[in-house]
Amino acid sequence: MTIFEAFFRPQGVAIVGASRDPFKLGYGVVRNLVNHHYDGGIYPINPRADEILGHKCYNTVFDVPDPVDLAVLVVPAPAVEEELLRCVERGISHVTVVSGGFREVGPEGVVREERLKQICAEHDIALLGPNCIGTIDTHTPFNSTFVAGHPRPGDIGFISQSGAVTAAVIDWARGSGVGFSRMVSLGNQSGVNDVDMLNTLANDHNTHVITTYIEGVSDGQAFLHSASRISKQRPIIALKVGRSSAGAKAVTSHTGALAGTEAAYNAAFRRAGVLRASRLEEMLDWALAIAWQPLPRGNCVGVLTNAGGAGVMAVDALEAAGMELAPLTDATKNYLSQRLPPMASIQNPIDILAGSGPASYALCLDGLLSDETVDAVVVITAPQDWFAPVSLAEVIGEVSSSPLGRKKPVLAVIMGLASTSDATQVLHRRRVPNFAFPERIGSTLAAMWQRKQWLDSNSDTTDIGILPPPDDLKFSPGWLPQEGVDALLAAYQIPCPPSAVLDTPDEAANFADSLGYPVVLKLLAGDVTHKTDIGGVRLNLLDWNAVYQVAEGLLNTPFTGAKHLLVQKMITGGVEAIVGMVRDSQFGPLMMVGSGGTQVELIKDAAFELAPVTRKLAGEMIDRTTLSLLLQGYRGRPAADRESLVKIIERLSHIAVNHPEIAEIEINPLIVRDDGAYAVDMRVRVEK
Amino acid sequence: MTIFEAFFRPQGVAIVGASRDPFKLGYGVVRNLVNHHYDGGIYPINPRADEILGHKCYNTVFDVPDPVDLAVLVVPAPAVEEELLRCVERGISHVTVVSGGFREVGPEGVVREERLKQICAEHDIALLGPNCIGTIDTHTPFNSTFVAGHPRPGDIGFISQSGAVTAAVIDWARGSGVGFSRMVSLGNQSGVNDVDMLNTLANDHNTHVITTYIEGVSDGQAFLHSASRISKQRPIIALKVGRSSAGAKAVTSHTGALAGTEAAYNAAFRRAGVLRASRLEEMLDWALAIAWQPLPRGNCVGVLTNAGGAGVMAVDALEAAGMELAPLTDATKNYLSQRLPPMASIQNPIDILAGSGPASYALCLDGLLSDETVDAVVVITAPQDWFAPVSLAEVIGEVSSSPLGRKKPVLAVIMGLASTSDATQVLHRRRVPNFAFPERIGSTLAAMWQRKQWLDSNSDTTDIGILPPPDDLKFSPGWLPQEGVDALLAAYQIPCPPSAVLDTPDEAANFADSLGYPVVLKLLAGDVTHKTDIGGVRLNLLDWNAVYQVAEGLLNTPFTGAKHLLVQKMITGGVEAIVGMVRDSQFGPLMMVGSGGTQVELIKDAAFELAPVTRKLAGEMIDRTTLSLLLQGYRGRPAADRESLVKIIERLSHIAVNHPEIAEIEINPLIVRDDGAYAVDMRVRVEK
Repeated sequence: MTIFEAFFRPQGVAIVGASRDPFKLGYGVVRNLVNHHYDGGIYPINPRADEILGHKCYNTVFDVPDPVDLAVLVVPAPAVEEELLRCVERGISHVTVVSGGFREVGPEGVVREERLKQICAEHDIALLGPNCIGTIDTHTPFNSTFVAGHPRPGDIGFISQSGAVTAAVIDWARGSGVGFSRMVSLGNQSGVNDVDMLNTLANDHNTHVITTYIEGVSDGQAFLHSASRISKQRPIIALKVGRSSAGAKAVTSHTGALAGTEAAYNAAFRRAGVLRASRLEEMLDWALAIAWQPLPRGNCVGVLTNAGGAGVMAVDALEAAGMELAPLTDATKNYLSQRLPPMASIQNPIDILAGSGPASYALCLDGLLSDETVDAVVVITAPQDWFAPVSLAEVIGEVSSSPLGRKKPVLAVIMGLASTSDATQVLHRRRVPNFAFPERIGSTLAAMWQRKQWLDSNSDTTDIGILPPPDDLKFSPGWLPQEGVDALLAAYQIPCPPSAVLDTPDEAANFADSLGYPVVLKLLAGDVTHKTDIGGVRLNLLDWNAVYQVAEGLLNTPFTGAKHLLVQKMITGGVEAIVGMVRDSQFGPLMMVGSGGTQVELIKDAAFELAPVTRKLAGEMIDRTTLSLLLQGYRGRPAADRESLVKIIERLSHIAVNHPEIAEIEINPLIVRDDGAYAVDMRVRVEK
Repeated sequence: MTIFEAFFRPQGVAIVGASRDPFKLGYGVVRNLVNHHYDGGIYPINPRADEILGHKCYNTVFDVPDPVDLAVLVVPAPAVEEELLRCVERGISHVTVVSGGFREVGPEGVVREERLKQICAEHDIALLGPNCIGTIDTHTPFNSTFVAGHPRPGDIGFISQSGAVTAAVIDWARGSGVGFSRMVSLGNQSGVNDVDMLNTLANDHNTHVITTYIEGVSDGQAFLHSASRISKQRPIIALKVGRSSAGAKAVTSHTGALAGTEAAYNAAFRRAGVLRASRLEEMLDWALAIAWQPLPRGNCVGVLTNAGGAGVMAVDALEAAGMELAPLTDATKNYLSQRLPPMASIQNPIDILAGSGPASYALCLDGLLSDETVDAVVVITAPQDWFAPVSLAEVIGEVSSSPLGRKKPVLAVIMGLASTSDATQVLHRRRVPNFAFPERIGSTLAAMWQRKQWLDSNSDTTDIGILPPPDDLKFSPGWLPQEGVDALLAAYQIPCPPSAVLDTPDEAANFADSLGYPVVLKLLAGDVTHKTDIGGVRLNLLDWNAVYQVAEGLLNTPFTGAKHLLVQKMITGGVEAIVGMVRDSQFGPLMMVGSGGTQVELIKDAAFELAPVTRKLAGEMIDRTTLSLLLQGYRGRPAADRESLVKIIERLSHIAVNHPEIAEIEINPLIVRDDGAYAVDMRVRVEK
């Protein structure tokens, strides 16, 4: 793992294509280096100028004095290759190519970009871009972008697949007074990619939280590996856009229909401990809270407000996000009742009433923080005339940074806009995030709680025991025939009802007699995937005659190709589940569990995880679906053997890991009864 | 319908309890009247002062000169009654009671408040409050609150059940430069209530959009009636809070379990055309957009951006909210391609690239507005150095207010914070809402489109033909016996399978023979509501013997009370639906339709509307559930008779309207086949 430190803390930087024209990017880069106080060597390369902004110009990189370990290229696309080669010759190890005109402009640009790639690979050059706005480190300080403005120093890092979004975040940071540590726009990722930068920011001691704008990861496995490792120390908060552009590949199973790119990203983020925000503002909200405040130890929140309505809004948002109101101890209620006016509410949410001031807030905040049932506190104030919002901000900031306050997260909601900017500045200086509207605290606290849970759970699956792949399993491409399915089930000890594949009504009926009734008869035909759709599955046959007649009928259905009959002991009662696997192009085998049956795609009651899945994870998947309730014995039915379902999910995930040639698996229904779980119907597709 | 105009445009106002002490509310009210330029008579009542802020003080309201039509009372609670009586005697018709200390403080306050109510009722006084912050009209101008600050004049009205939330909105309005017309905080609604104020604001020609913060409506039927009427002219946007405090009444049916207060509010708002925002910020976003821009004629949006990433964020938000990207005509694409750089994207979202400036925006915005496939346009810019955001704001504002621009809504997203406030001010002056983040435009455009659809649909159900109630139906309280259910079904022509209630296995088996097989046998016992839960329903009995044996078994089950057997022809195949009704305490009969069966409460696939339900509305309810797909013939099954389900929903809603003594109805399952729909099991609960 290489750390590309020179992009953020170079000893000297050459700006190839530096300009004196304030309307050119090559001017903007020099201006930012100078104005934002970079104190290493600034070497503008411009043979037609003597100096730019007080810095001597050089004809070529060859003329630049040492040390110089970074070049920023701002020349037209056709000239980039030559300049890059000069940097190589000069021994400059890191190059940021700001110039556009590469992959993003079509075939000609692709060729150009390939040349850059080759040169960098050959000479071991770290290339950022092309088509990017470069890097910022507020602590060095160093700003190699041409974007106006510079955030103040802070501890939030930002990695972006869009230069424009980076510019927007810089502008937001300046307006809100929130500090950042490092920012990087990745451009076309011809050399250095998203995962490289995750590792680089993770290694920076000034960066405590990494935020990232993602359109798509460059390498799913590498992302998973690095993000999982980094998340243990540094929270990663991702805004993944492009939700609507679901993959358009042909879908042949329920699992495939329900999975899609988004389910894979969600599973990958969950596995790696990456918090997924749904909006840019939410990503920033979460980043402040997690960077500045400790994580809650539980999901019980104390709400302190001077207005009932604002408290209700907060409670709505908290409950929608899965958080709860702390019950509060009697000691706390007693403490509060002695310090608040008689009509104040000492039930959570605590309403201290409009007449109360900063001292009441200080006492109540301290009281809530002292209560063992409280894991986090939200302090809300609606505008009133008794005191300036800034006084409250000072009080909240002070209590929050006391030894007691540092143990639990405190979020502030000083409502309004015109009168609150000073208060926000004070709070942000004291590292208490302030929100103008109470609704934003719900998902923010939930994200903090999610991270705490992830850290506490051992989600590492690298060392789990995977069942060894049986030696004798061989598959040929296409849908596995029933014998192949049976062999796979047997090899991984997945129970299924006794059955046989037969060819005539006579054989079928005789075998049914030997099984005992009721039985199920299924038509096996090469071109039929969803058997029930064409009436190819007949349940609940009760005697020899019934089997014989139905078998005869099925064999007469007008489908081309070989037809066989599957006679299967019928599994009655129990809960119908579906368990499946598809392979995501980025993240590999994706497991699904959900309510089974024929309406799976309508009900959409399914949970996903990447394989391999431990029993613990399998249990969590079940808990995210209604199976969880059904298996407990919904409405008077006997409880089903949940553990047997857990085992089957685990084993199916081992199949997915052991046999990469298997593209898709689906067991539907998997019937879970009190005496175990049975794979009643399983389909397996093998790819070349 | 009384219009309480004097609360917003009084001729003279007496402030009872006016004070010279700047820390008292009685000073704040006088200060706001004076500072915000009210030019009617300002009469502070304070026997111990000569003048306050240049206005002569009076001993009592009796000394005040005419005209005076409003008194604002800011005296301690125990003194309010006496002062109110003086106002009555003086002939002051409108009174705002700011003072707290009434219903909200317990029994003593309730008594005090009842006295106020009586006095006002007796003397026909309009009382606002008590425990409120009063009223603002920015056009009069008039500000009778004690809250610091005053929004600029505008066309958004705000009615609030929380004084604190009103104060927060005032502060937000001042900070964002958004104008309001009238604001009112309702307090305890002892006299004037939410519906009165809806009507008053609807009658104000300066108020074009009404926003409202609701904790609970005071009278559901009155609200529905007024809001439905007002919405036809004036959009109403509501933030209803308290989602988590669901009613705790005992629930005896699936319908009851799924309905709850929130479903009733949603149904009422939908019926009345009230747009329900989920957050305070969203309410304000929608208000600006709807007040300032025309409604879209369809849901196809053109997105214009100078940054791909920002465009993707907007597309995600639009699609999540049910909006679509406009396809654009070839003429538009041709027009764009001649005006944009070669690498620009002329597919929607249009990416004009970072180098393009205000002129390109003007031309492209005009091009998109001219395209017949475009119903609305979103203009996005990420910060760049080519031009000041304010130039773009001027361009967008100008095109949006051209004759072409006034036909379609234009929303702006000038991203960032530090560099954008001037641009926002320009846009807001030109009545184009600007959002700092692209994600906010999704729900905003969807709300505008929802309003357009509501206006276009005739949702008026006041004149629909309700089936007349049959004369001979009489119910006694409790669960209706099977004969009662059968009579109700027959009276409203709701088809059900032929059946009979019998007492012995012999009778049951003989009747089954006469029906033909298969049949269903159900145990009817007084204390059993969910029959399947105890094994009391046996399906698919195929001959006399089977019926006899099962009947014998059922009659032997250990339940106390009378036991009977229901023998019913079994309806095979078809789609299982549930149709139900419960009565909401505020909004009356609430109809439910959804996927039927025993797992209804787990699947939660249900839609709600208030009764009466027209066939059109019944169809829309079906379309909001997966029934819509199932009825079309999901996965090879025959299409079911959707119209028969529609009719049953309609008729059930007539039962709900005709028989207020029926508290709950549930048909589950209602089996919909290609030959009609059958109420297989129906339960009806009658209240005293």
